[in-house]
Amino acid sequence: MRLEINREEAMPVYLQMANRIKEQILSGILPEGFVLPPERKMADDHHVSRTTVIKAYEELKSLGLAMSRVGQGTVVTERKLPATNESDPPIFPMSWYPLFDKKTANVSDTVSEIMYIGNQGNMISLAAGIGDPRLYPVDELREIQNERPIDSDHLNLCSVEGYYPLRESIAQLMRFRNLSVTARETMILTGSMQGIDYAARTFLSPGDAVIVEEPTFLQAIQCFRATGARIIGIPMDEGGIRLDILEAQLARYKPKFIYTIPNFHNPTGITMSMERRKGLLKLAYQFQVPILEDDPYGDITFGREKLPPLKALDPYGYVIYLSTLSKVLFPGLRIGWVVAPEPVMKKFMLLKQITDLHVNTDSQILIYRYLRKGLYESQLKKILPIYKKKRDTAINVLGKENGLVHFKRPEGGFYLWCRIPYPVSQKKLLALCADQGIIYTPGTVFFPQESDGEHWLRLNYTYETLERLTEGLNLLIKAIKRLSVQNEPLDEATGVRPIV
Amino acid sequence: MRLEINREEAMPVYLQMANRIKEQILSGILPEGFVLPPERKMADDHHVSRTTVIKAYEELKSLGLAMSRVGQGTVVTERKLPATNESDPPIFPMSWYPLFDKKTANVSDTVSEIMYIGNQGNMISLAAGIGDPRLYPVDELREIQNERPIDSDHLNLCSVEGYYPLRESIAQLMRFRNLSVTARETMILTGSMQGIDYAARTFLSPGDAVIVEEPTFLQAIQCFRATGARIIGIPMDEGGIRLDILEAQLARYKPKFIYTIPNFHNPTGITMSMERRKGLLKLAYQFQVPILEDDPYGDITFGREKLPPLKALDPYGYVIYLSTLSKVLFPGLRIGWVVAPEPVMKKFMLLKQITDLHVNTDSQILIYRYLRKGLYESQLKKILPIYKKKRDTAINVLGKENGLVHFKRPEGGFYLWCRIPYPVSQKKLLALCADQGIIYTPGTVFFPQESDGEHWLRLNYTYETLERLTEGLNLLIKAIKRLSVQNEPLDEATGVRPIV
Repeated sequence: MRLEINREEAMPVYLQMANRIKEQILSGILPEGFVLPPERKMADDHHVSRTTVIKAYEELKSLGLAMSRVGQGTVVTERKLPATNESDPPIFPMSWYPLFDKKTANVSDTVSEIMYIGNQGNMISLAAGIGDPRLYPVDELREIQNERPIDSDHLNLCSVEGYYPLRESIAQLMRFRNLSVTARETMILTGSMQGIDYAARTFLSPGDAVIVEEPTFLQAIQCFRATGARIIGIPMDEGGIRLDILEAQLARYKPKFIYTIPNFHNPTGITMSMERRKGLLKLAYQFQVPILEDDPYGDITFGREKLPPLKALDPYGYVIYLSTLSKVLFPGLRIGWVVAPEPVMKKFMLLKQITDLHVNTDSQILIYRYLRKGLYESQLKKILPIYKKKRDTAINVLGKENGLVHFKRPEGGFYLWCRIPYPVSQKKLLALCADQGIIYTPGTVFFPQESDGEHWLRLNYTYETLERLTEGLNLLIKAIKRLSVQNEPLDEATGVRPIV
Repeated sequence: MRLEINREEAMPVYLQMANRIKEQILSGILPEGFVLPPERKMADDHHVSRTTVIKAYEELKSLGLAMSRVGQGTVVTERKLPATNESDPPIFPMSWYPLFDKKTANVSDTVSEIMYIGNQGNMISLAAGIGDPRLYPVDELREIQNERPIDSDHLNLCSVEGYYPLRESIAQLMRFRNLSVTARETMILTGSMQGIDYAARTFLSPGDAVIVEEPTFLQAIQCFRATGARIIGIPMDEGGIRLDILEAQLARYKPKFIYTIPNFHNPTGITMSMERRKGLLKLAYQFQVPILEDDPYGDITFGREKLPPLKALDPYGYVIYLSTLSKVLFPGLRIGWVVAPEPVMKKFMLLKQITDLHVNTDSQILIYRYLRKGLYESQLKKILPIYKKKRDTAINVLGKENGLVHFKRPEGGFYLWCRIPYPVSQKKLLALCADQGIIYTPGTVFFPQESDGEHWLRLNYTYETLERLTEGLNLLIKAIKRLSVQNEPLDEATGVRPIV
């Protein structure tokens, strides 16, 4: 038995121990009759004194949750506490799982698990979804805070739609992306993830269908799953979502909307061609299905000319556009936005009122002042050459290993989407990498049907320094080689031989 | 026709005008054949030149949305734009309402409407749900920002559960409220409203029932409605929720949980007695129904001894406890928290991952440093005498008017819950008050069945200065008198005569 004890906590260790065991008893994990570990073993395992364990067990006995049994030790008793009055009915611990709404059972803990492993020690993270923290514009923000120290309006409520001057700044940013909108058509969100969740809640119920690219942003999959809706994945090619397959599925199902990431798609890095954008809109109009356009990476481009967002090509008002400052600036302040037709904006505003009311006022004001100084463009100028160099480095390192992994060079964004053309177990590779001190995101989490991603890896190149990025990729290559020894290649057509 | 034009916007006025009209045409508000207002009238109504209107109308014509018709003027045309190709099928504007999930139709825009009216000009707000912004601890926060200027860790991602040192500080704050919890059992939320929403999403689906006090926090009603669940209201008396009625309803329905505000209840100001707390828990255990305890106002007490939270009286783990810093400190940074049994915490964490990921990191660090200095207690010491004085003032002003309104003196919290014992129309009173420059919250919004609140008013006394509070209440009294002239009193038992 391994209990989580925190010596930094004010609460005494014996009480923490008792609480941990109590939780497990009350939730049914430790059944009646379970023999708790002997005091000495418990003490050794947790690096505490035997006295501490004795006090913990005594605490449990006093609560009526355990008792001493000769020949056995300390044993979990029947899960009811003695009632105050003989005639009082017995009280049972709350049984939570039957009460939970079934839909929430569909949501899995993937993100957390990956983040947890990544936080262990000094691991090299190729799994990050963020940029390089060393590039955050700290000096500029400090200057802004000096110019305008925190004040009561920073601490007060804000409009549900967002701090108006920030909405104006964002509208201006949109014009920089060839999207002509007014502040009035823009609403500030607590990250663009909130926009995906609001869209899910606005449109989806059990029995509904939603179309996504396959693969796609993993948290969008989880979010749509939470509504009980059916997720229909449409494969992609180098031009983006496959319109022929999309058309067939649109004819077959009545999806509530199409979720797409047209620029530097997460995880594939693909940018939807102009032709494909027009074709997608055409299909949307034909089948009268709205589009949820998610654009976090559009400005992270390494030279390629930017294409206009779907929303800019849509005069009929079918597109809901989401974006965020998290990738270009920093993720911690949770600032995103939506641009959508009025009926949708109204729904989002209602949802905002019953979820978190409005986005953090202080941060909105800070970001507004930052954008007003024209610093967004200078931040881009700073980060793009650095990220481009990191991309090039990553490609060189991986490209040296002839055919070990297959990938296409991304023209922007944060990720390399790699395929291992050998029957290598994703689970074993993850474990071996963790052993070697690196973590990446397995492709499985990006597919509605997880097994479809068994041979794919998403590798981030923006987060780590050049040195650690290079080191991490080399360790990854070694790990893949170790696991692929004596394996035949999957694709005979490529003529790739296993590396020995 | 009144269009919203903003001269501060970068976008030219004629284009804004055209966009506003375009929205109305595309969403069906202006049907085919509708004659747009004559250019001169439009120009006069919006204080723009006729040329501007002409340009706006030309824009619409070029989009194929309007045309000139002899004898009529500018007329809305068929709602399709000409297709590029003769053989292309016609494209129709998106019809949003059939796509919207039915559950969201249950949510109404009440909060926004009230806030909107309140933002007009210099109205005296007795409708606020917040404290006095002049009391925000601005100096203390500035000092903290000077000691530790913003840094890259303030801007980076944070744990889903929250910034760990803040969780510890909150756990300590809980001990101050007689609730013994660890940091591990505490999760930071983007306001306690988010906790209500997460609870709703964790437990409720169409067909489920949830129990609330009647009346109760208006946004909780909206939030529960959004799940499609049935809301069962239980009346209260001066001791809190009526246990006899609750027991009958628990036997009749299988509610997923009971939502309660035991301390300085919003809107009634009632604090649940100790006896009632124990009785409520006993019923919860008997029927195995969890309790969602919402405690935003517990520390806003004017002398009365604080009672322990339900959670502190619950060794069986039935209670989910929510609270916030919004009422004691300030609302704009959106910092709340939940303390709940582990299975519930896990669900909340999953929901956090698919909604906004984590609470604003910078604000969590700021608040942690604030709490660590012991400033919460000094803030309380500062605000409590001031709020007590405002309460006393409000009671004096209203109490002078013998029997005009009925209310009980609240022993803490933010509100006076007043009943008008005359058949006065809530709608007329609201309008008359708005005319006079004051706004309050009509009691209707706090009841699942709105009409039950027809004779009730919630009056906030914390937000305004003493002068404005007094002025506002006097204006309210005048308004009530005006409307109640010649009306017989509702309650003959009280022997109250109408004021002439």
